[in-house]
Amino acid sequence: MKKIIKNGIIVTATDTFNADLLIDNGIICQIGTNLSEQGADVIDAKGCYLFPGGVDPHTHLEMPFGGTVTKDDFETGTIAAAFGGTTTIIDFCLTNKGEPLKDAIKTWHAKSNGRAVVDYGFHLMIGEVNEAVLNELPSVIEKEGITSFKVFMAYKNVLQADDETLFKTLIAAKDLGALVMVHAENGDVIDYLVKKALEGGKTEPIYHALTRPQVIEGEATARAATFTGLANSQLYVVHVTCADAAKAIADARNRGIEVWGETCPQYLVLDQTYLERPNFEGAKYVWSPPLREKWNQDALWSALKTGTLQTIGSDQCSFDFNGQKDLGKGDFSKIPNGGPMIEDRLSILFSEGVKKGRISLNQFVDITSTRAAKLFGLYPKKGTITVGVDADIVIFDPTVERTISAETHHMAVDYNAFEGMKVTGEPISVLSRGEFVVQDKKFVGTVGAGQYLKRAKYGKNYETVEDKTLSM
Amino acid sequence: MKKIIKNGIIVTATDTFNADLLIDNGIICQIGTNLSEQGADVIDAKGCYLFPGGVDPHTHLEMPFGGTVTKDDFETGTIAAAFGGTTTIIDFCLTNKGEPLKDAIKTWHAKSNGRAVVDYGFHLMIGEVNEAVLNELPSVIEKEGITSFKVFMAYKNVLQADDETLFKTLIAAKDLGALVMVHAENGDVIDYLVKKALEGGKTEPIYHALTRPQVIEGEATARAATFTGLANSQLYVVHVTCADAAKAIADARNRGIEVWGETCPQYLVLDQTYLERPNFEGAKYVWSPPLREKWNQDALWSALKTGTLQTIGSDQCSFDFNGQKDLGKGDFSKIPNGGPMIEDRLSILFSEGVKKGRISLNQFVDITSTRAAKLFGLYPKKGTITVGVDADIVIFDPTVERTISAETHHMAVDYNAFEGMKVTGEPISVLSRGEFVVQDKKFVGTVGAGQYLKRAKYGKNYETVEDKTLSM
Amino acid sequence: MKKIIKNGIIVTATDTFNADLLIDNGIICQIGTNLSEQGADVIDAKGCYLFPGGVDPHTHLEMPFGGTVTKDDFETGTIAAAFGGTTTIIDFCLTNKGEPLKDAIKTWHAKSNGRAVVDYGFHLMIGEVNEAVLNELPSVIEKEGITSFKVFMAYKNVLQADDETLFKTLIAAKDLGALVMVHAENGDVIDYLVKKALEGGKTEPIYHALTRPQVIEGEATARAATFTGLANSQLYVVHVTCADAAKAIADARNRGIEVWGETCPQYLVLDQTYLERPNFEGAKYVWSPPLREKWNQDALWSALKTGTLQTIGSDQCSFDFNGQKDLGKGDFSKIPNGGPMIEDRLSILFSEGVKKGRISLNQFVDITSTRAAKLFGLYPKKGTITVGVDADIVIFDPTVERTISAETHHMAVDYNAFEGMKVTGEPISVLSRGEFVVQDKKFVGTVGAGQYLKRAKYGKNYETVEDKTLSM
Amino acid sequence: MKKIIKNGIIVTATDTFNADLLIDNGIICQIGTNLSEQGADVIDAKGCYLFPGGVDPHTHLEMPFGGTVTKDDFETGTIAAAFGGTTTIIDFCLTNKGEPLKDAIKTWHAKSNGRAVVDYGFHLMIGEVNEAVLNELPSVIEKEGITSFKVFMAYKNVLQADDETLFKTLIAAKDLGALVMVHAENGDVIDYLVKKALEGGKTEPIYHALTRPQVIEGEATARAATFTGLANSQLYVVHVTCADAAKAIADARNRGIEVWGETCPQYLVLDQTYLERPNFEGAKYVWSPPLREKWNQDALWSALKTGTLQTIGSDQCSFDFNGQKDLGKGDFSKIPNGGPMIEDRLSILFSEGVKKGRISLNQFVDITSTRAAKLFGLYPKKGTITVGVDADIVIFDPTVERTISAETHHMAVDYNAFEGMKVTGEPISVLSRGEFVVQDKKFVGTVGAGQYLKRAKYGKNYETVEDKTLSM
Repeated sequence: MKKIIKNGIIVTATDTFNADLLIDNGIICQIGTNLSEQGADVIDAKGCYLFPGGVDPHTHLEMPFGGTVTKDDFETGTIAAAFGGTTTIIDFCLTNKGEPLKDAIKTWHAKSNGRAVVDYGFHLMIGEVNEAVLNELPSVIEKEGITSFKVFMAYKNVLQADDETLFKTLIAAKDLGALVMVHAENGDVIDYLVKKALEGGKTEPIYHALTRPQVIEGEATARAATFTGLANSQLYVVHVTCADAAKAIADARNRGIEVWGETCPQYLVLDQTYLERPNFEGAKYVWSPPLREKWNQDALWSALKTGTLQTIGSDQCSFDFNGQKDLGKGDFSKIPNGGPMIEDRLSILFSEGVKKGRISLNQFVDITSTRAAKLFGLYPKKGTITVGVDADIVIFDPTVERTISAETHHMAVDYNAFEGMKVTGEPISVLSRGEFVVQDKKFVGTVGAGQYLKRAKYGKNYETVEDKTLSM
Repeated sequence: MKKIIKNGIIVTATDTFNADLLIDNGIICQIGTNLSEQGADVIDAKGCYLFPGGVDPHTHLEMPFGGTVTKDDFETGTIAAAFGGTTTIIDFCLTNKGEPLKDAIKTWHAKSNGRAVVDYGFHLMIGEVNEAVLNELPSVIEKEGITSFKVFMAYKNVLQADDETLFKTLIAAKDLGALVMVHAENGDVIDYLVKKALEGGKTEPIYHALTRPQVIEGEATARAATFTGLANSQLYVVHVTCADAAKAIADARNRGIEVWGETCPQYLVLDQTYLERPNFEGAKYVWSPPLREKWNQDALWSALKTGTLQTIGSDQCSFDFNGQKDLGKGDFSKIPNGGPMIEDRLSILFSEGVKKGRISLNQFVDITSTRAAKLFGLYPKKGTITVGVDADIVIFDPTVERTISAETHHMAVDYNAFEGMKVTGEPISVLSRGEFVVQDKKFVGTVGAGQYLKRAKYGKNYETVEDKTLSM
Repeated sequence: MKKIIKNGIIVTATDTFNADLLIDNGIICQIGTNLSEQGADVIDAKGCYLFPGGVDPHTHLEMPFGGTVTKDDFETGTIAAAFGGTTTIIDFCLTNKGEPLKDAIKTWHAKSNGRAVVDYGFHLMIGEVNEAVLNELPSVIEKEGITSFKVFMAYKNVLQADDETLFKTLIAAKDLGALVMVHAENGDVIDYLVKKALEGGKTEPIYHALTRPQVIEGEATARAATFTGLANSQLYVVHVTCADAAKAIADARNRGIEVWGETCPQYLVLDQTYLERPNFEGAKYVWSPPLREKWNQDALWSALKTGTLQTIGSDQCSFDFNGQKDLGKGDFSKIPNGGPMIEDRLSILFSEGVKKGRISLNQFVDITSTRAAKLFGLYPKKGTITVGVDADIVIFDPTVERTISAETHHMAVDYNAFEGMKVTGEPISVLSRGEFVVQDKKFVGTVGAGQYLKRAKYGKNYETVEDKTLSM
Repeated sequence: MKKIIKNGIIVTATDTFNADLLIDNGIICQIGTNLSEQGADVIDAKGCYLFPGGVDPHTHLEMPFGGTVTKDDFETGTIAAAFGGTTTIIDFCLTNKGEPLKDAIKTWHAKSNGRAVVDYGFHLMIGEVNEAVLNELPSVIEKEGITSFKVFMAYKNVLQADDETLFKTLIAAKDLGALVMVHAENGDVIDYLVKKALEGGKTEPIYHALTRPQVIEGEATARAATFTGLANSQLYVVHVTCADAAKAIADARNRGIEVWGETCPQYLVLDQTYLERPNFEGAKYVWSPPLREKWNQDALWSALKTGTLQTIGSDQCSFDFNGQKDLGKGDFSKIPNGGPMIEDRLSILFSEGVKKGRISLNQFVDITSTRAAKLFGLYPKKGTITVGVDADIVIFDPTVERTISAETHHMAVDYNAFEGMKVTGEPISVLSRGEFVVQDKKFVGTVGAGQYLKRAKYGKNYETVEDKTLSM
């Protein structure tokens, strides 16, 4: 079945132009002026942008954490993603030391299989690197198509890996063609500061931020970058929050080290003062790394603009305020970390970034979709609008003004971190492989229609697909 | 008349994909699989890339310099450009202090009108900023479509402007919507070092390099960037040659200053030792700024890869070795500065950059075409392959191996700086607005067919064309 | 005639210790416990520090500026210096382009000869470097003992030298053994900003600061440092006011370039808001470079502590508020630049630096006396307390609390920039070559007793006096 | 009994001057010209410098390491120290996890008591920070006068402490008034690289250097500095070997963090190629961190000159080539780390530093003696020549030319790392508290005469001794 989208303004990471777009069998097959409508459903996108569907490289759906489980699962999470203009997510598969990696992956398939409404892939957490792990990794890459490994430098005694593990992971990733992701904070220092704060009776949410100072995010980022250069490997720093970390990435890149950086919507528009909100409301704003002093926002926007940071992830990790976040009443360290973000990622970046002149429209597409697709081996199937690729398309009205609210959002969680915030622009309809998931702001998708994505290996120049293409 | 290019691999700054491409009336109107060939000339591009025609932002054709005139004029120069895959050039219109700007522009139109075989625009040199100049600038921008101004920080007592002039130009450019370009070297220091060298009997070509140390290119670059930040204006640094200047640009960008950088093919692959060649051959390699010690090449490639530098210009400025370069025998300071480079710009970057894995294929397109078109107000008409734009297209065979030589090049000059160098990849055919200029490696264009391009104003986020597009 | 000072605590740039001190014929000849008092006048310094007399490397006495003349001359200026604990000054001899240097020096000798109450030397301003100047410099050094040259990078069309002059001066200084001093601000940019401000009706004193932004002090400092490295010469940056300039110096020093930095008391404790004081009082606080935003003070103190800056000058350049500063009413650019500072230099640094724990007591001595003496060829005669040197000694009570005021100061000017400020510590008695100039807070010196000091050449390792000493 | 030293040139960290020096009861009591010789032994120091006795802040005597014990003990080690002009050492007391600190200290007293010929103190290694350790630290400081704690960031599974331990130590040190010392290398990365090298059959000494790349010394240094800033504490980085670490220290100091740096003679004059010497001779040059590529030497000298590094330690840790170093034949990781350096520390720095113009004579004294005495709470008793301090004096002939050799050195070890190297300058006689230990190049001291030194607490401005002095 064919569809033709007319009158829209197609936007890629490079181009912005008026053209019709013909979809056949879920694939974009023609782009042009005055395309023949013969035999195709016609969709009128007048006044709207057509963006490639967002690629969210950072989600935690149905993830156990601190004795509870994130509220959104692969069903509610991907529905919310679709409403927000995201048609591909990559979720983090957690592992347990001593257990086969394939067991963890199996668990994650069980959570997602038959549940997702848009396509999805997995990153794999690496907590240790021993013979067993090294033996399993090739099949993780080849068979499962999982080509990115996450290492935690924080969460001491829980998720944290030591420097040797990080370094070994970088070496292995280089040899195998994977991208190493790090949560870059110094967990040892944090652990000490948290204990001291609690001992001193400092238990409110704000102490979550105060016990995770930004200099040790900068420190960990620089350390991981140094290891990457030494290993001649590649690194992707997740959720960069502050000037210190952005500077560490810029310095490494200037020295020729292959380091990429992701930030998240919350760090661009919220700040540390939110954790001081009364009635324990500060708990809603507990992320790790934490929200920072407001001046860091300029540094992050500037880093996005100049290319020091390249992507934006949601770090979707939602917990209800009532019943989950309140586990941390009287002890900030017990507040489940994270928040609902999968739905508002594009809207925030469009409204605060493009409309306010901080980034260009094409950069918006690159940051929300194209770059992540390329870095994580999903391109060209995902991440762009051109001939031959999946028809994952967002029909986006850039003129709508609306207010973000938990009352209207589609995430399963009982609050929204941007409650009351006015934004301009909204996804009107969203297609995944040529089928509507959201149409005229209504969910019309199918639970389970989302497919698992095996991803390609990381290449040093990830954009160079010439040989592959030439052999087509 | 319609043309259809089949079987090629279209490459943009973002995408690489197989598709047919339909051209109607000089404009790309459809891109897709299995486009109908009805009524169109069919061009088979099997095995070839289709690149957007190169945009060369830095040429000096028929330019007087040091008592002589550059060998290539708008006819020979643009023919050579076309052979090299460049379909748009922006040439520097020199001005004289005290004379109306419009007279200089008239002179440049006289040189180019009816001569060029591909499209062209002008930058305007600014040697002084007084009331007369300020009064003329608005019409230069509005009427002539000249939206970039060049200031020389070197060539003391000849082209050099003082800091006040540079600063005023930045202020004016910000107010008027223009981009300021600088030749960034400290001319005062150079002038002294040149005199001292000549007084000391040091007259060979190598002293051209030794009297222009790279620290003072770094110094001038940092100074211009500081002024730009203070003026809240925008800057484009031409022909960046060394690590010092690249670092100055990176630092400024990290501080949020809008600075762009261009390098040239010669700085990426040649080095200072070339100036030591015997029999005065060193004179062939006299550029300003000069070739540097070889280690700088890594810094430049790295800066291109990470986006600290964004474009590559040819700085085409050709003089015969016999009869022109030899004006400097016995006095290096009299060697005409510059070299023939307009033809080999894409080939060098493809062969040394893409094929050697230093940059990706999409970055190649961005660097050689898209970014310059955007920065200099030519986009979307020029600089990309998409629906609605000029069909300026290069059919490029990435597998050809050939040797660069003055015997086979099309520039009017008697030597080639890359003589004997083996490169991979070659433009086979080149179209300008849908018409072949080069077809199967033969010139089939028309002298004078090249059109003068009025360029759009510079915008802070130059890629943001949404409003314009929406009103279409 | 002998004097013995007992019970004091002697402080040098290295040591702090209790000892008696014997002076014979103006020279310190013994330091020890229980020195024999035989035949000597005994001075009891109980509870006091004995500091080496301050060396002020930066004064402008009886200097013409902007159609007026600084209020303090060599008599009132050196009396005030002595009250403040300074026993040596180095004043700037201004030159006029086209006139022999020796004429300017003669003029300065005429101003000072028979007037000064403490010893003094001259720096020489260099406004141009031509054959005549180069021919004269050796005798300036050898005969006059003037071994430091000042170049202005600001004051366009008045004092400002171009980059070529600065570079030539650095080359000459290296060859001849002199130290080049710079006023580092970009005069071209300032000149433009001042004109624009005045055109816009912005005439109040605060615009003096706003038209001299600190980034262009940083720029000029970095530029001068780059030239110094290229010339393999040596540089002393006068009156560093801000973080940008301190960073430029630190960067240069880390690259192995011989750059020294001086700050002044006003930049350590006053800030830009003083220029906003009503009733034109802001004019009292007009220095060039200007007072900065307060946060720069931390950077300056830190730079003093770590050794990025090494000295403190007064930049004494006093004008009455009534009758001189008011020349700038209605036009800030006509306010005579400078202020009265020669008297409070040590007190400010002791009270704000040592007492507040920002620098150590020994650093205080180094910064106010020893380092300047070494850098400017006055050591060991001046700048320390040890055997064999001039008995220039300050008996300083560190416990006195007092209030700075024009009513009690000894400068000839009608206001004090620190009016009302409370400080701890005060010079009680001051000796120059063993004779009291100030005794128990009363002037007992002799007008004209101050001697002109011929200074030694600058040496790369200025502290290495071994050969000279060994030949004694 | 009194001694008077005549005709020498006294050198302190600030001053160089001719004077006689009177010693009474082991204390310097008068300095002056023509001191009365009455009742004193007269020592003629004509043509010689009088330096304050060297303070070596970094020795490992009779230390167990890798299954063997360093060759030099407190007797042979301090005799060699005295011959080299060092009259105070601070040795590292190693601790074992789980054992009381006082037991370790007792062990170290047992090694040194009655053995040393010059005075000595202890640093204390911190391997863990728990309640027991925290409870013991106050008495370590108050009772034992041990006011500096060493933390190892390398030697995984042996001496290495984790980040939490380092951070806790910094916090404790700040609270208690101690200085934290770090061995800054990333032990995790090294451990991995060593294993990989050995697995690959790379067993020769050179692999010791190649498995400890300098970037991870830079990384560890920056990390420790970041912790120090966060803890508002103080840090002393031992044995800095390379540009990366020096830059990390400079950056931290510029940010206002209290970080000090020490280098060692070997890093200033030897380089990585020494480890490639045939016949296993490379093992003689195995230090950790290792010798580096030669270009780092310039960075270290420059850092000493500008004050980024402040001290020089010997890191004396001697093992015989035959019988000890050869434990590592066939496995470089088993080569005992360290070398004999206590004797040549001053000679190397004088000959290579002062004589070659890299540092001044006064800086030499500061680096070898004064600064270490101040940083480690020994000043003013040790570290300077002035009235009231211990008469620890080196009579140093700066004109002697000699060749360093194991045949003539006084260390107990069978090789010298500088074998055959020509140096200028030699200690002729050395006094400790007024008594000759070495006289006319002969040992005349007494085994056991060296006293244990309880050291003062660290103060933020360690030089500020005013209050203490005033209360005398």
